[in-house]
Amino acid sequence: MAETIFSKILAGEIPADKVWDDPHCIAIRDISPQAPVHLLVIPRKPIETIDDAAPQDTALLGHLTWVAAEVARREGLGSNGYRLVWNCRDDGGQEVPHIHLHVLGGRRMKWPPG
Amino acid sequence: MAETIFSKILAGEIPADKVWDDPHCIAIRDISPQAPVHLLVIPRKPIETIDDAAPQDTALLGHLTWVAAEVARREGLGSNGYRLVWNCRDDGGQEVPHIHLHVLGGRRMKWPPG
Repeated sequence: MAETIFSKILAGEIPADKVWDDPHCIAIRDISPQAPVHLLVIPRKPIETIDDAAPQDTALLGHLTWVAAEVARREGLGSNGYRLVWNCRDDGGQEVPHIHLHVLGGRRMKWPPG
Repeated sequence: MAETIFSKILAGEIPADKVWDDPHCIAIRDISPQAPVHLLVIPRKPIETIDDAAPQDTALLGHLTWVAAEVARREGLGSNGYRLVWNCRDDGGQEVPHIHLHVLGGRRMKWPPG
């Protein structure tokens, strides 16, 4: 697995504004926020794309989704709401080949979602 | 739990173009598609918003995510990619109070995601 900005953040080689840290994942603030709150939930396991997630990764995927909702609550987004986004490969707009779940809130998100 | 269009589809009271059906969820085509392929993965369990998902729902959330990737593969989206979207409450643009995961592909998705 090639190094990515996320593997370097997970290894502590690059600093990040961390809002969650557990044995399975971290959540950090996106350095190019697209909403007043824009977080990324990143698994420690380096899965390249969501298309590469195996059936045995489902527990991890569920945990990442629950953590996304939990960090959204901690940011005060629970009652007004927010959007969670997985980008897969080029058509999805994925920029780092290590899966990450975007949490966007603090403004009304528009439709379509990009 | 109030009836929704999804509870009625799950009960077979309203027809839908179903592309997946298992003991935990179904996937259907969105009737107002925002991309050449636009599917919805809907759990049988009626969770109102992703903010209402409990820690014991993580296995289900992971399964829904894996099914989204699997139906995307079956639609031929695996290699070019796609976007998965959870909308939560008003700021997220959620329209039906029964969680559902959007799968959008067949075109290049833009950024920001709405």
